Amino acid sequence: MDLDKENRISITVIRRLPKYHRYLGELLKKGINRVSSKELSDLTGFTASQIRQDLNNFGGFGQQGYGYNVEELYNQLGKILGLDRTYKTVIVGSGNLGQAISNYNGFKEAGFEVLSLFDKNPKVIGLNIRGVEIRDVDELADYIKENDVEIGVITTPRECAQDIADIYSKSGIKAIWNFAPADIKVDEEVIVENVHLSESLFVLSYFLNNREDYVKN
Amino acid sequence: MDLDKENRISITVIRRLPKYHRYLGELLKKGINRVSSKELSDLTGFTASQIRQDLNNFGGFGQQGYGYNVEELYNQLGKILGLDRTYKTVIVGSGNLGQAISNYNGFKEAGFEVLSLFDKNPKVIGLNIRGVEIRDVDELADYIKENDVEIGVITTPRECAQDIADIYSKSGIKAIWNFAPADIKVDEEVIVENVHLSESLFVLSYFLNNREDYVKN
Repeated sequence: MDLDKENRISITVIRRLPKYHRYLGELLKKGINRVSSKELSDLTGFTASQIRQDLNNFGGFGQQGYGYNVEELYNQLGKILGLDRTYKTVIVGSGNLGQAISNYNGFKEAGFEVLSLFDKNPKVIGLNIRGVEIRDVDELADYIKENDVEIGVITTPRECAQDIADIYSKSGIKAIWNFAPADIKVDEEVIVENVHLSESLFVLSYFLNNREDYVKN
Repeated sequence: MDLDKENRISITVIRRLPKYHRYLGELLKKGINRVSSKELSDLTGFTASQIRQDLNNFGGFGQQGYGYNVEELYNQLGKILGLDRTYKTVIVGSGNLGQAISNYNGFKEAGFEVLSLFDKNPKVIGLNIRGVEIRDVDELADYIKENDVEIGVITTPRECAQDIADIYSKSGIKAIWNFAPADIKVDEEVIVENVHLSESLFVLSYFLNNREDYVKN
């Protein structure tokens, strides 16, 4: 067995971490200081033992009979998720979706700073969208290198996604957040996180047609 | 043990179905007629036995030694996902995200027809966004009833999400696709599918900080 693979935290565990973080943030806002794995289970829908197991991967945060300190766990999970620092980010594709992401304050507050939008349409190049300029995509590679951009978002049509991924990959982008409905290929060292909105929509239509399988999640 | 719960298809299986459907659609476009569970495994990243098990939940599609007929499986999965019919849909929140969803042809092609956008801002009410009118949110309840709308999308700010969910719930909407970063509460019979874009972004930042855990997925 591949030892490396064995020690790796599984993607299903990793995908639950932001959920824990979000629910803990809400408890914190309500002024709640202490939470049990049972209470977290009621909130998140995951079992209490699943939650304890997940969190044990990163060190034992809870105490038998006490539960978790909400603020401490929230901050620790934030660190684990890398939310204790900022990320220079650019977005290629300045349409509605690109602008929605650029404008969303929640991302900025979490440390993801959109430095610039990029587009190939001369009609929009030079425009300023709530303080973020739209630049010519021809300048993308230079811009990334000059500004040490770490994260590149793709909100272009499907046909353009691979070209942008190639530029990102060659310019030293470390991670790509891809919204185009295309499977992009990049150098091994580049992290790709795809958002397939249609997958979420099709789960919804599945439940509409198979009501008996629906559980709140 | 709860028999009902035992017979239920699990949410993790259901969430893999749209992925299979998408990859099969791509094979179909390439003119590939036949695919083995091993080949599907290479494409999707799930194990071959996982894939066989998932598909067996819905009847045996494959044949030992032959694999799956791509077109047949694609069509069957489409039916299972409810993509063989159309859905009348409305969107509340006509900002960038609402417009992005309204304009996206992929959803329309899959049968999700956006009849109208809604907003409370008098400056945008009456505008027409690529053939879709923005109506006053005060007309939402009547519009849903008069037009037998099944799916309601929420792309409003967080503060408004519960109010819209209440209107949807009372007007007979069957399913809500919620993009607002809020956990909405609705009547039990209403299906809710949440899209938390920040969860995807935080998984990306996790991988940026824990590169050794990253596997293409």
